[in-house]
Amino acid sequence: MVESRLIGPVRVVGAGLLGTSIGLGLRNRGIDVILADASPTNLSIAVDYGAGRAAAPGDAPQLIVVCVPPDVTAEIVARELEAFPQAIVTDVASVKLAPLAELTACGADVSRYIGGHPLAGRERGGPLAGRADLFVGRPWVVAAHDAISYQQATAIDDLILDLGAILVEMTPEEHDRGVALISHVPQVVSTIMARRLTDAPASALNLAGQGLRDVTRVAASDPELWVQILGANAQPVRDILLAYRDDLDRFIDALADPAAPGARRKVAEELAGGNAGVARLPGKHGQDRRFVSLSVMVDDTPGQLARLLAEIGEVGVNLEDLRLEHSPGAQLGLAEISVLPEAVSRLTEELAARGWRIAG
Amino acid sequence: MVESRLIGPVRVVGAGLLGTSIGLGLRNRGIDVILADASPTNLSIAVDYGAGRAAAPGDAPQLIVVCVPPDVTAEIVARELEAFPQAIVTDVASVKLAPLAELTACGADVSRYIGGHPLAGRERGGPLAGRADLFVGRPWVVAAHDAISYQQATAIDDLILDLGAILVEMTPEEHDRGVALISHVPQVVSTIMARRLTDAPASALNLAGQGLRDVTRVAASDPELWVQILGANAQPVRDILLAYRDDLDRFIDALADPAAPGARRKVAEELAGGNAGVARLPGKHGQDRRFVSLSVMVDDTPGQLARLLAEIGEVGVNLEDLRLEHSPGAQLGLAEISVLPEAVSRLTEELAARGWRIAG
Repeated sequence: MVESRLIGPVRVVGAGLLGTSIGLGLRNRGIDVILADASPTNLSIAVDYGAGRAAAPGDAPQLIVVCVPPDVTAEIVARELEAFPQAIVTDVASVKLAPLAELTACGADVSRYIGGHPLAGRERGGPLAGRADLFVGRPWVVAAHDAISYQQATAIDDLILDLGAILVEMTPEEHDRGVALISHVPQVVSTIMARRLTDAPASALNLAGQGLRDVTRVAASDPELWVQILGANAQPVRDILLAYRDDLDRFIDALADPAAPGARRKVAEELAGGNAGVARLPGKHGQDRRFVSLSVMVDDTPGQLARLLAEIGEVGVNLEDLRLEHSPGAQLGLAEISVLPEAVSRLTEELAARGWRIAG
Repeated sequence: MVESRLIGPVRVVGAGLLGTSIGLGLRNRGIDVILADASPTNLSIAVDYGAGRAAAPGDAPQLIVVCVPPDVTAEIVARELEAFPQAIVTDVASVKLAPLAELTACGADVSRYIGGHPLAGRERGGPLAGRADLFVGRPWVVAAHDAISYQQATAIDDLILDLGAILVEMTPEEHDRGVALISHVPQVVSTIMARRLTDAPASALNLAGQGLRDVTRVAASDPELWVQILGANAQPVRDILLAYRDDLDRFIDALADPAAPGARRKVAEELAGGNAGVARLPGKHGQDRRFVSLSVMVDDTPGQLARLLAEIGEVGVNLEDLRLEHSPGAQLGLAEISVLPEAVSRLTEELAARGWRIAG
C-alpha cells in the first residue's frame, strides 16, 4: 500500500463509473471511503466491489466528491455543503461554469467548493465498469475561483495526485471553452455524421472501413448524458460550431463547381489545414512522433499473436502500443506495433529472421 | 502456391501502394506481372520487392490494372486501351463515374474497360507499403456498365478473387454515392474538425482524449490525393454535406437557447439519431455484436502482453480483436480483448485465476 497524501475520510456521492473508480483508487491507498448513491442497488454493488463503505451516523468527511450527472451536480453539491459544514466539496462534471454559477446564485458556501473534471472515461458506465487506475496519467482539471483558499484547494490536489492523475489548473471559462473544442464539438460532429447513415443503403454501409468507424465512434455515446453536457456548455460549443459551419460552407461552395478557378485551391487549403490541426495533437499519435510503427502479419489462430509478442519480448524491445487490424472473414490479421525509433530496425531484422512477415 | 483463376500476364500501371500490392498478390499465385510506372525509382523498388517484372517488347497482357491517381486515371486507361487492343483494362480509382464519362467523351473503346475500386488502403503510400494481402477480405467494387460483356468482366472478377477480396457489383452512380457517404464526407467532416485545432490553445489540446483523436484521424490524409477525389465526386459529396449542414443548423439553433421549450428534445433526438446510425455499421464494432470485449490491466514492461496472450492461447480462446490503451506516462496499459460471447466468462475466470486484473 502506497502512502496517501489525503487523510480522509472521503465521501463519494454517486457510485457510477467515476465515483466507483475514485473509491477503488482511494481504497487502494488505505483511505476510508464513504459511498452514497440514490440507487441502493448501485450503492451495494460499489460497496461489494470494494470501492468503499456505506455512510454511518457521525461521519465527518474531509473531502466530498460529487459524481452525479451534470444537470443535478449543483443541487447535490449545495446539499453536501450544507450537510457537512467542515468539508471541502468538489465534483467531476464535464462543465465547470454552470455549476459554479448555479451554486453562487442559490447562495451556497462556495468558499468550500472547487470544481473538478477528470478527463477519463470509458464507453461502459455503472459501478462495475469502475477501475482503480481509470485516472492514471489522465489530466484532471481543477477549476479555480477567487472564493477558495490555497489551503482548501490542497485536499483536491491530494485527491488527484493520489489517483495518479495529472493536475491541470484552469479557470472555469478556460475549461469550458477547452472541452467544447476537444470533446463536445467532436461529439456533435460525429453524431451528425452518424445520423447520415440512418437511411443509407446497406450496399453503401458494407463498403465502410476504419475511417468511417473512427469518425462515428463517439456517436454511440449516451444521449441522456450528452443532452445535459451540451445544454450546460451551449455557448462555447455553439461558437465553435459556427466557425465549423463557415468552413463547411467553404467546402460546399468549392464543390458546387470544382472546375471553377480557385475551387481546387480552396479545397486543398482546407485539407492542409486539417493536416496542420491533427499535427498539433500531443501524445503518441500526434505531434511528438516519439514512436514508429511496424506491421506484422499474424494468422488468425490461437497463440499466434502471443508468440509474436513473446518474441518481441525476447528481443528485449518494449511495446509502446499495439493494434490488431482484422478484417471480418479474413484468416490473417495485421499487428501494428509501436516502438521507440531506435528499436525498429533491429526488431524488423529479428522478427524477419524468426519467420514473421513484416508488412511495412 | 495456390492455383490462380487468371491466366495472365497482368500489366499493372502505377507501382504505388495499390499497384505494388496487386503485383505481390498475383505473383504469390504464380501469375506473370508486368509493372510500369512513370517513376523509374518506384518501378525498380517494386520490381526488387517482388511485385513483378519490367515491361518487355512483345508483352501481350490479358488484363491491365491502372493504379494511378484519380485525375490521370482516364488518360492512362485510354492510352492502355489503345496500346493493347486485345486487353481488358480496369482501374482502382476511388470514383467511378468521372473516368467512365471522360473515356466515353474521348472516344475510347470502353467495351474493354470496366472500372474497379478496392476498398483497401493504408496511411502510408508508395511501393514499400505494398503487401500481398492488402485486399484480403476487403470489398472490391466492380462498376458495371452496358458496353461490357459478361466474358470480358470475368477477367476482373478473377483478379479480385485471386487477391482474396470480396467482389461487389454496383453501378458507377451507386458506387460514387456510396463512397461519398462512407468515405468522402467523413474525410471532409474530420478535416473541418481538425482545422478548428490549428489556433487552439495548447492547454485545451492537452486535454484531448481518444474521442478527438478518432474523429480527426483521417484528417491527416494526403491533401493532393483528396483534392482529386473530392473534385471528381463533387456532386454526391456536396448533396450529403448539405444534409449534414441542415442537421448542424438544428444543433446550432437548439444551442442558442438550450432552456427554450423543445430545445433539449431536439438535441436528444439528434443524439439518438447518431446512435441509430452507428448501430447500422456492419462488422465487429457495429451492428452484429458478434464479439464481446474484456479489459485486462497489463504492466508497461516487455513481455507482459505476450504473457497475457500466451495464457489466452493456453485457455484455448481465440482472440478476435485486440487493442492496447495506453496513456502517455502511465506505467499501466489496458488490453481490450474481443472474443466470442460464449468464451468470455470462462476466459475471465481463467485469467483472474492466473492473477490478471480484469477491468471490466
